[in-house]
Amino acid sequence: MDIGFERREKTRTILVELSKKVKKIGEDDPRRIAHSFKVGLALTLVSVFYYVTPLFDGFGVSSMWAVLTVVVIMEYTVGGTLSKGLNRAIATLVGGALGVAAHQIAVLCGEKAEPILLGLFVFTLAAAATFSRFIPEIKARYDYGVTIFIMTFSLVTVSSYRVDELMQLALQRVSTIVVGVATCLCTSIFVFPVWAGEDLHKLVAADLEKLANFLEGLSTDYFAEKAEVENLESKSFLQVYISVLNSKPTEDSLMSLARWEPGHGRFWFRHPWKQYLRIGALSRQCASSMDALATYITTYPKLKPGTDPDLHLKIRKMCQEMSSESAKALKELSSSIRAMIVPSSASRLASTVVASVGKLEDVLSEDKAMSDVLHLATIASLLTQLVVRAREIAGSVEELARLAHFKRFDPIHEVRVKP
Amino acid sequence: MDIGFERREKTRTILVELSKKVKKIGEDDPRRIAHSFKVGLALTLVSVFYYVTPLFDGFGVSSMWAVLTVVVIMEYTVGGTLSKGLNRAIATLVGGALGVAAHQIAVLCGEKAEPILLGLFVFTLAAAATFSRFIPEIKARYDYGVTIFIMTFSLVTVSSYRVDELMQLALQRVSTIVVGVATCLCTSIFVFPVWAGEDLHKLVAADLEKLANFLEGLSTDYFAEKAEVENLESKSFLQVYISVLNSKPTEDSLMSLARWEPGHGRFWFRHPWKQYLRIGALSRQCASSMDALATYITTYPKLKPGTDPDLHLKIRKMCQEMSSESAKALKELSSSIRAMIVPSSASRLASTVVASVGKLEDVLSEDKAMSDVLHLATIASLLTQLVVRAREIAGSVEELARLAHFKRFDPIHEVRVKP
Repeated sequence: MDIGFERREKTRTILVELSKKVKKIGEDDPRRIAHSFKVGLALTLVSVFYYVTPLFDGFGVSSMWAVLTVVVIMEYTVGGTLSKGLNRAIATLVGGALGVAAHQIAVLCGEKAEPILLGLFVFTLAAAATFSRFIPEIKARYDYGVTIFIMTFSLVTVSSYRVDELMQLALQRVSTIVVGVATCLCTSIFVFPVWAGEDLHKLVAADLEKLANFLEGLSTDYFAEKAEVENLESKSFLQVYISVLNSKPTEDSLMSLARWEPGHGRFWFRHPWKQYLRIGALSRQCASSMDALATYITTYPKLKPGTDPDLHLKIRKMCQEMSSESAKALKELSSSIRAMIVPSSASRLASTVVASVGKLEDVLSEDKAMSDVLHLATIASLLTQLVVRAREIAGSVEELARLAHFKRFDPIHEVRVKP
Repeated sequence: MDIGFERREKTRTILVELSKKVKKIGEDDPRRIAHSFKVGLALTLVSVFYYVTPLFDGFGVSSMWAVLTVVVIMEYTVGGTLSKGLNRAIATLVGGALGVAAHQIAVLCGEKAEPILLGLFVFTLAAAATFSRFIPEIKARYDYGVTIFIMTFSLVTVSSYRVDELMQLALQRVSTIVVGVATCLCTSIFVFPVWAGEDLHKLVAADLEKLANFLEGLSTDYFAEKAEVENLESKSFLQVYISVLNSKPTEDSLMSLARWEPGHGRFWFRHPWKQYLRIGALSRQCASSMDALATYITTYPKLKPGTDPDLHLKIRKMCQEMSSESAKALKELSSSIRAMIVPSSASRLASTVVASVGKLEDVLSEDKAMSDVLHLATIASLLTQLVVRAREIAGSVEELARLAHFKRFDPIHEVRVKP
């Protein structure tokens, strides 16, 4: 009895956890719920082909291909659905036409040679098309199309050996696939559309804001005179840039989908999506500098006034100014992207920053003796951080050796092997 | 005539370029050529179902599903083919069984209610399954399976309205899909197999070696007494860590495929693949430190002996020692992973590194006045780099504003809108 109770309790906890998780996923982005219903809707729409007798009589079992197409090409974003839909439609046409041509050639060569020739065609074209998928440009835009091309060509070529009314079958299939693609596109574009381009636009702006938050936190929680530097690890600003560091794959995929999307809202058809990737790359570089700084100040958090409190205060104030001014500039850039308005004062702010960088360099080079060592010392401390990280790698590799049961190196054996 | 000649020349150049590119892709990794032939082979093997009459009589038009399966699940790595193959086989079984059950329920409710009930089932299950794809764990391992589940369930449920011998059709399809999966698996595993796990293993080792090359270059080309620091940008070691920074997506996908692979060669079934991701993450952190250092030394390359040449030489020598020792340690770790041998001297080397870091800190803190400013000055110079990068972002956003025709901000309008 007790065991049964325990088990039920356990199952209940798991179910409660799962439902919390599912709820959170839906709440984080309600468009996900809308997307799920859209897939259901599109599928129900194409299955009408089966339920309505006159329609079914027209298309027959080929109606299946409409259902299949909807399941496979319905993607979360409009760009995703468009790219898959166009790839599928065009690849089916090309593959089908080539398949029919291959069939005609094979028939000309006599009954015995036919299966051999058909096999040879399929082998050659499948191998060549598969190899073409390794070309980066094709991989990025037409990967799905090549798969569908191989599939259609093989299906048409191979079935041509058994099916008599090849052309009729091919036409039926192409038209049902077109119906499937059209259904998906309409549902995708007209029912709560999710635009990849818009997501990319928002992502880039949000990343700039994160960078600004780091710099703002730095100026108020670290460089400010009364800032407590004791519990630095608990400050949220020291973690805020991390998600920016890993944004490359998301940005790349959104950009490749955005290119397929038609103009919508404030975005024209030839919107400069590539420029977002450039801003993204620079943001990541900036985040990587933040990482270096954040690691340094969490390792050595103390800011002691030392023997020259005036110089100390001067540098500290300049650092505060630099970070708060840069934070303002980045915030403005972020909101100017969001509103699609030319950034008005960003260049002014940028020049302020340049001025304070210059001032700082002047202050640091006033004392000649210090300035010379300073440079090398900065390099040394950067190197130290690097080396400490390299040590962590060593620990991690040792852990791997333990987990994967690496062999121990046997020096006696080694000596024997050598001549 | 001239225009025709020019055009022909242009086409020739394009073709020559393309053939060079294709040749390079093949030469970079000859396994790609093997993979293309493997796809052709697997397709030719399953099309035998069409050519041999007794086989075709057994499976009928369902043979099509074997061809379709091969095209869709044949992936570059064994893990990829296995994961897609198992996903497809299991999802087809589950989706098919549920589809038959849905059909039975719908039939019980009478002829008029049947299409409505069938439509309702398809809508609900498709929406629920689509939503489950947003759960990260399902997305990572079973994304393809869920697609196939929706497809099979919809096809079986919807066709059940028109097809009479549902069970026979379902069995034929399942068996042809199993034949397709089996063909792919055999070709994948027994003909020049490409193991995702092995690729991950080699990638992690190669990345460690790249980090080592950076440190080695630093010690011989920058910290060495006679090193020329004039043409730093041309040195290759300053670029070597960049590919490590972007290795996360490749490592993640290889790891998720490696988990599906059976034991092979020196890798057992439960090889600790996750540990490779940990090493990879630490390598990227280390590369990010390298980025900070590389940016700093290319911005301020000069190493002047200054007013205290002894101290200068001391620090420089220590830096050289630190980087060359760390390079040796990383090289050894890399080759110990490659040979799968416990890293023998890595921990010894690591402790040498710790010692020299300590020595360096001692030297720098000897002069009390300098040591205090030094710390703040390091922070200031890191911040300066960061701010310079933030400025580059500003330039890039302005470029976007120009390319995308952002509106100019109109202050008069703004004043009017505000109450």
